[in-house]
Amino acid sequence: MASTIRKRLLLISNSTQHGRGYLDHVEAEIRDLLGPARRVLFAPFAMLDREAYEAKTRERFEAMGYRLDSLHRVADPQHRVEGAEAIFIGGGNTFRLLKALQDLELVRSIRSRVADGIPLIGSSAGSIVSCPTLKTTKDMPVVEPASFEALALVDFQISPHYLDPDPASTHMGETQEERILQVLEENDCPVGGLREGGVLRVQDGARQLGSSEGARLPWRSNPERRSAPCWLPRHWPPNDFEGNPAVQSVRCVFIAHARRLHQRSRVRLPRTG
Amino acid sequence: MASTIRKRLLLISNSTQHGRGYLDHVEAEIRDLLGPARRVLFAPFAMLDREAYEAKTRERFEAMGYRLDSLHRVADPQHRVEGAEAIFIGGGNTFRLLKALQDLELVRSIRSRVADGIPLIGSSAGSIVSCPTLKTTKDMPVVEPASFEALALVDFQISPHYLDPDPASTHMGETQEERILQVLEENDCPVGGLREGGVLRVQDGARQLGSSEGARLPWRSNPERRSAPCWLPRHWPPNDFEGNPAVQSVRCVFIAHARRLHQRSRVRLPRTG
Repeated sequence: MASTIRKRLLLISNSTQHGRGYLDHVEAEIRDLLGPARRVLFAPFAMLDREAYEAKTRERFEAMGYRLDSLHRVADPQHRVEGAEAIFIGGGNTFRLLKALQDLELVRSIRSRVADGIPLIGSSAGSIVSCPTLKTTKDMPVVEPASFEALALVDFQISPHYLDPDPASTHMGETQEERILQVLEENDCPVGGLREGGVLRVQDGARQLGSSEGARLPWRSNPERRSAPCWLPRHWPPNDFEGNPAVQSVRCVFIAHARRLHQRSRVRLPRTG
Repeated sequence: MASTIRKRLLLISNSTQHGRGYLDHVEAEIRDLLGPARRVLFAPFAMLDREAYEAKTRERFEAMGYRLDSLHRVADPQHRVEGAEAIFIGGGNTFRLLKALQDLELVRSIRSRVADGIPLIGSSAGSIVSCPTLKTTKDMPVVEPASFEALALVDFQISPHYLDPDPASTHMGETQEERILQVLEENDCPVGGLREGGVLRVQDGARQLGSSEGARLPWRSNPERRSAPCWLPRHWPPNDFEGNPAVQSVRCVFIAHARRLHQRSRVRLPRTG
């Protein structure tokens, strides 16, 4: 089992915030997570055009002072993962991404390096594959992976680009919340919807939820539940946060564990601009 | 192979139109498709609560004068499919639906009955499983089917509840159009986005696109391409329809076959109310 205490993860809802440049809204978080690492190994597999994705991402990381190598170019990707200082898994189509990680037999190698303590950044589809499965993706299943099991770097599911239901909508298709409830009907795993701008940081055995501006909030305050299978703040009343300026930058809604149709409960954090 | 000429299909984008009752907007289409059949076999598997779904659907079909039997209740579902007069596959989660059809070994039986000429109605997820695969679903993959291969009653993919991109949106997650383009990046199959209210009728070897009011339009006018692998109206200029009152009720956008990043082309039909 991977050691929880050594894990260093930054899971991002979206790589680009409306009106800003690629990774601009998370630059401070990335620098803070990477620490002294200078070289980042990039998994571009969620996109069809890996060369273009590599070029765009290399330019961005070089501008921050890091070297970037893309896994799609190297002869022995497993070996490169084993020697990586830091890993970035980019977004795109989650099924395409997971299938590539499985086909290249990188799932165990990445898990192992994260357990060693190297920092890993996931964005959008890259955040989903860091979860136990890809069951919270909204992407179309464009290719068929060997299984839905993913990296399991965390013990819950993330639903990135989380959009709150629009009460004025006349559209009859399911909302993101309804889709997440379908996941909960069939699975025991808690699900968190990360709104755009939201990031989740896992470090020093703790989980922290941050905003695009880097403000952070302890994910939950009850240490007794920290290592429990369902660590969600199910009974954490949202109004605990009223008046707390940190909450103003929280961009997450958590739809808690539900077993079949029973025990459904939710905690909503206040939404902000 | 199923005989194309005998197929009788009604594939619906959404079972409920905003502001109307369950199946109200397609009642005339359903009656017309079912013809003299009096008894409908219902597949409720896309929903978790099959009893509730059965009760709601039975009430609706009884109000139209049909008897309804639900496949989840019968001891030998394959046998019941083999003797069915008509089939209705309801909506919900597409992965859950396909997995149930596979687990109950109903895929071949349904194909075979449709080839015999019995009418089949699919709604939302039920329309998707009528396609070659479930690759155009937007549902979360809440359970893992044995494969993504579906009923293949038609030779193209439907994307129901189609929402046109909103040019004013600041959301950075993929639009439905972008998700469909990801399908086309990896697959050779044409994809049609059926807007809410849209229905697709397959009968007498022809495909017709209709609206909630039952107006119909020949899907394509070039008979030479009718049996070609890609039968889409790629070169069918949308302005052919200007001034045609039937077009006012068409609710479909077709995103044509694309092989990798090349040859992408689209035909947009005018959008209406």
